[in-house]
Amino acid sequence: MKLFRLEGNRIGVIADDVWHDVTDALDTNPAAWPPTQMVSFIASLGERTLQQVLADPAVRRIDPAPEKLLTPVEWPNKLICYPANYEKHREEMNSQNRADKNRFFLKANSSLSGPNDPIVMPTVKGREVHHECELGIIIGKRGRHITREDYAEYIFGYTCLIDMVIRGPEERVWRKSWDSFCPNGPWITTADEVPNVHALDLNLWVNGELRQSANTRDLLLDIPGMIAMASEAATLMPGDIIATGTPEGVGPVQAGDHVRIVVDHVGEMNLKVVAP
Amino acid sequence: MKLFRLEGNRIGVIADDVWHDVTDALDTNPAAWPPTQMVSFIASLGERTLQQVLADPAVRRIDPAPEKLLTPVEWPNKLICYPANYEKHREEMNSQNRADKNRFFLKANSSLSGPNDPIVMPTVKGREVHHECELGIIIGKRGRHITREDYAEYIFGYTCLIDMVIRGPEERVWRKSWDSFCPNGPWITTADEVPNVHALDLNLWVNGELRQSANTRDLLLDIPGMIAMASEAATLMPGDIIATGTPEGVGPVQAGDHVRIVVDHVGEMNLKVVAP
Repeated sequence: MKLFRLEGNRIGVIADDVWHDVTDALDTNPAAWPPTQMVSFIASLGERTLQQVLADPAVRRIDPAPEKLLTPVEWPNKLICYPANYEKHREEMNSQNRADKNRFFLKANSSLSGPNDPIVMPTVKGREVHHECELGIIIGKRGRHITREDYAEYIFGYTCLIDMVIRGPEERVWRKSWDSFCPNGPWITTADEVPNVHALDLNLWVNGELRQSANTRDLLLDIPGMIAMASEAATLMPGDIIATGTPEGVGPVQAGDHVRIVVDHVGEMNLKVVAP
Repeated sequence: MKLFRLEGNRIGVIADDVWHDVTDALDTNPAAWPPTQMVSFIASLGERTLQQVLADPAVRRIDPAPEKLLTPVEWPNKLICYPANYEKHREEMNSQNRADKNRFFLKANSSLSGPNDPIVMPTVKGREVHHECELGIIIGKRGRHITREDYAEYIFGYTCLIDMVIRGPEERVWRKSWDSFCPNGPWITTADEVPNVHALDLNLWVNGELRQSANTRDLLLDIPGMIAMASEAATLMPGDIIATGTPEGVGPVQAGDHVRIVVDHVGEMNLKVVAP
């Protein structure tokens, strides 16, 4: 199934291609701020299943499908990123980093944006702003010291994720944490709908030109390794997002460009790049 | 006044040395998860003042003062850190970094811990784990592109903050994001109670030995500059925390040590360091 978010903090589920608004079947108040309703919903699925939620009489069908979706998780506990996690990207960047040695960094939650939001160019002049095409992992269950063997139990689902970055000498976190610099979505695809996450194609185009094309089998630190490494240091929380790293082919975008990302079995997003 | 947090997600206010539990005067549910009640409370203070909250008949006095306080803001939008922000700390680290040039990085929200929580040593062997004594800023109001002149309007208050770190070659974010690596508190002191935040003494002792002693007048990037620089890139949210950087005198701790931090006019914390 797929979980999505609508304006007004409403939450929806796609099951068998039918779109449902489940907000009124949940304990959370869509008017509450900060917007952690999706985090609460994911955490609550330890107690009842998505099938049980969909059977609630308060669930309504949405037809036709909504035109505008929001970033699925707007206010996670954290947005973890693994650097230099594909060999050919390390080569193109002349990078001495490797995810398995350097471990993770973070992007700001406030950089998260949705499938219908534009990528807004930063006000920094004379710098390249690059796209980085990635698979995003959504954590489903609280955990620390998770072993490689147990990793799957902690993954709720997957999302398409673009890790936007300003190239330059400043802190990488700052260069990656601008508002709108983490488009993700269009929804969270539950893990059971992805046949083999260890051999998943991901592709990114700019103005119709294929820029990045890779497969998760080339990850240097694999998904079980990422869960184990992150949770050695930090408690993972339901709703946490892990950006798994970008393959080769990163490159600049500018205002007016159109960016398309497709992650097989997960989803597709089409995004405009706009001036500040 | 001072805002604090109690077990069970209860929120309190100290006014004129009297401790109050204000939880039942707030719109938020202390049983809700994730624990963003303090973020909601700070945001709500744009609509009514702390005096108005204290006048609510649902507010109860707490006497004697509670023994155990929790980290004041457990789940902010982000925990921003400025590196290399005191000249003598740059010298002791042989650092080429400077906060005003390198800008900010982040620590994980899950590293936040409170004044009664221990600092838990990491499971990484053979590494030094250092204390970094800092002033923490708590943001009160949502803002982007905040000018130096307007900075004060966006600051809710201040807290004592220790930025714990494993020394070594990995991502600095990973080395600083272990659970319990951001003790802060014991409360949030509202900005009006700090006579001059630009000339504030901060001190840190380990086992009674003074290790760090500095004054915020020596910050390289001052507080208005930190607010302006962070909000150029990212929308600041109520409850966001800014770790302003550490002065010279950082050094190792080990299990069994006792760490004391005092920030004048803000507060004091006494923390145990324990084995993993």
